[in-house]
Amino acid sequence: MAEFMTRAAAPRVGDARERPSTIATQPYERPGPPDGAEAASILDSTRASVDPELRSAIDSLPPAMRRIARYHFGFENPDGTPAVGGAGKAIRPALVLSAATALGGPAARAGAVKAAAAVELVHNFTLLHDDVMDRDTTRRHRPTAWTVFGDADAILAGDALQALALLLLARDPHPASAQAGARLASCVVELCEGQQADTALETRAAGEVTLPEVLAMAEAKTGALLGCACALGALYAGAPEEDVEALDAFGRAAGLAFQLIDDVIGIWGDPGRTGKPAGADLAARKKSLPVVAALTSGTPAAAELAALYGAPYDHRDLERTALAVERAGGRDWAQGQASDRMASAMDELARAIPDPEAAGGLLSLAEFVTRRST
Amino acid sequence: MAEFMTRAAAPRVGDARERPSTIATQPYERPGPPDGAEAASILDSTRASVDPELRSAIDSLPPAMRRIARYHFGFENPDGTPAVGGAGKAIRPALVLSAATALGGPAARAGAVKAAAAVELVHNFTLLHDDVMDRDTTRRHRPTAWTVFGDADAILAGDALQALALLLLARDPHPASAQAGARLASCVVELCEGQQADTALETRAAGEVTLPEVLAMAEAKTGALLGCACALGALYAGAPEEDVEALDAFGRAAGLAFQLIDDVIGIWGDPGRTGKPAGADLAARKKSLPVVAALTSGTPAAAELAALYGAPYDHRDLERTALAVERAGGRDWAQGQASDRMASAMDELARAIPDPEAAGGLLSLAEFVTRRST
Repeated sequence: MAEFMTRAAAPRVGDARERPSTIATQPYERPGPPDGAEAASILDSTRASVDPELRSAIDSLPPAMRRIARYHFGFENPDGTPAVGGAGKAIRPALVLSAATALGGPAARAGAVKAAAAVELVHNFTLLHDDVMDRDTTRRHRPTAWTVFGDADAILAGDALQALALLLLARDPHPASAQAGARLASCVVELCEGQQADTALETRAAGEVTLPEVLAMAEAKTGALLGCACALGALYAGAPEEDVEALDAFGRAAGLAFQLIDDVIGIWGDPGRTGKPAGADLAARKKSLPVVAALTSGTPAAAELAALYGAPYDHRDLERTALAVERAGGRDWAQGQASDRMASAMDELARAIPDPEAAGGLLSLAEFVTRRST
Repeated sequence: MAEFMTRAAAPRVGDARERPSTIATQPYERPGPPDGAEAASILDSTRASVDPELRSAIDSLPPAMRRIARYHFGFENPDGTPAVGGAGKAIRPALVLSAATALGGPAARAGAVKAAAAVELVHNFTLLHDDVMDRDTTRRHRPTAWTVFGDADAILAGDALQALALLLLARDPHPASAQAGARLASCVVELCEGQQADTALETRAAGEVTLPEVLAMAEAKTGALLGCACALGALYAGAPEEDVEALDAFGRAAGLAFQLIDDVIGIWGDPGRTGKPAGADLAARKKSLPVVAALTSGTPAAAELAALYGAPYDHRDLERTALAVERAGGRDWAQGQASDRMASAMDELARAIPDPEAAGGLLSLAEFVTRRST
């Protein structure tokens, strides 16, 4: 398995940009491959702007909810002492602020900080609940909240974070806040449906799951909140309805591209960057996008894969399983789809923000989440 | 035990109004004891106004969330066929509409229907989650949602109902909707803290739990949403801030009175009306308000009760346990507290709505929830 991991980890899907179909950044004709420095700088400045708002919102919670939330966000240890490290990369707040900046300049960015914090609170509410449902024990290299505080406390802290997110917007005097609140609440409903579809898919026989189903699930579970983040930024910039929708579509498409690539990594690995060992999703018999594409391909490799997925997990079969997904076309399909979704994301972005200079921040973030840059 | 139930069920706590300290309805000097007909009529007309809004909101959910929500509300059976019976009594929406009517007349009532539906959605989100956490298997005489659909689906449907509640308010063009959304979201945070306190109290040794703790828990878990319902009605009537706060305080105090009486019924029974057998809370070793009052009374009966609560449950001890709570003063304390809270509820109500005619609806509902009328 060690050999498999080393070998499989080498060709990263990020290299998809070297494929012939590299239409992704065409609308803007960017000079050469991005290096990720811009994204890193946007994420840094986002955290600098949003963290104080986020911490102050969390500190406004009553004691028990505050303690669980502060642990989950990585602000403190279970015993209440300050923790080093901390919250996630803040991709979603960065999308809010970058969209606001692209469409309304620095003033719009400054006005959208509460909205950015609200999106991050919603994201973290879903993480708390998903970890309970999926029985995941590790999150951001630390034990998940339910393993520390119990299921009930993790569920309640998630509930409180959802309420806190919508409270931030309801109290925000910005003229876009009511529309943003409605959009974010609507997105939560979609996230719930997506997570429901995900848990339901996992209990069904591999052969019964269709590709449109898993694509719809991934869009609801992953694309919806990235799209909502971009749309909120546009709303806070006072952008017209069609630009808000274009930004939503941009974020959704980029989110789906991200999920496709994440699923490729879940099979062929990228352990240095995600902490996820190669083959993890196969070992868990996950019906990820490349796996379902392979299973429904009608190829001989599909039948082999179905037999392997039907049998109890044996780590000696891991390499053969990954090879079956690849031979059935699952890897190529996922990489092609990721490229297509990124191309469509770029089209949407160019429609709302034709100026490549202005669109640069969102473009860098999209490249970052899809691992097209480091 | 049958004999115990019959005997214990007889003296209802509603009879507390015959005690000397019957200051409850004093501010209004109502003529004679209420008969509950007014409350029943308010609840009927509330359901007639709010049900269409509630059903249309639930039907706007995506398929999986809709199905679970429709089952939980009693609109349909697990297989999707229409169900008879249905949702709860709609006390909270009735408080919203009655408060709006009392302070702003029929126009305010008509404008507050979405807010009333939002409060009912929040209430039901908490029921879905509480049932998962408490492992309760029956709700409104039907199997709870998690027993039918599983924990994940029940958690997700609860999440979606919270979002739907705040979505209704965020989309409501009424000038009070943003303030109402903020107030409701804030209330959700308090409900979460209350439920957390409740689950945490149940894992602690009976002797360690204090009376102020359980009172604070009951106020957060039960009083907060009743208070919020009344406050939302006042907001939608365009009432000044001090009246909104007085209505909140009225609902909170009435909610606490309700909880005290519900806890008395959980020990001495009222099986015909609640479906809850006498002694249920004692059998479950629940640290309800009368039990904690008894345990912390410093009486010889408190020591006896502590010993009984420390031992594994034996149904032959049920009558002795109830008697120990009574001898330690738990029943008298709870009934006295319920009277005091009702008196304070009436004071708050009279402050905001001095006209007994206008306050009549809220008064009837308060009497109804505290079983002061049938």
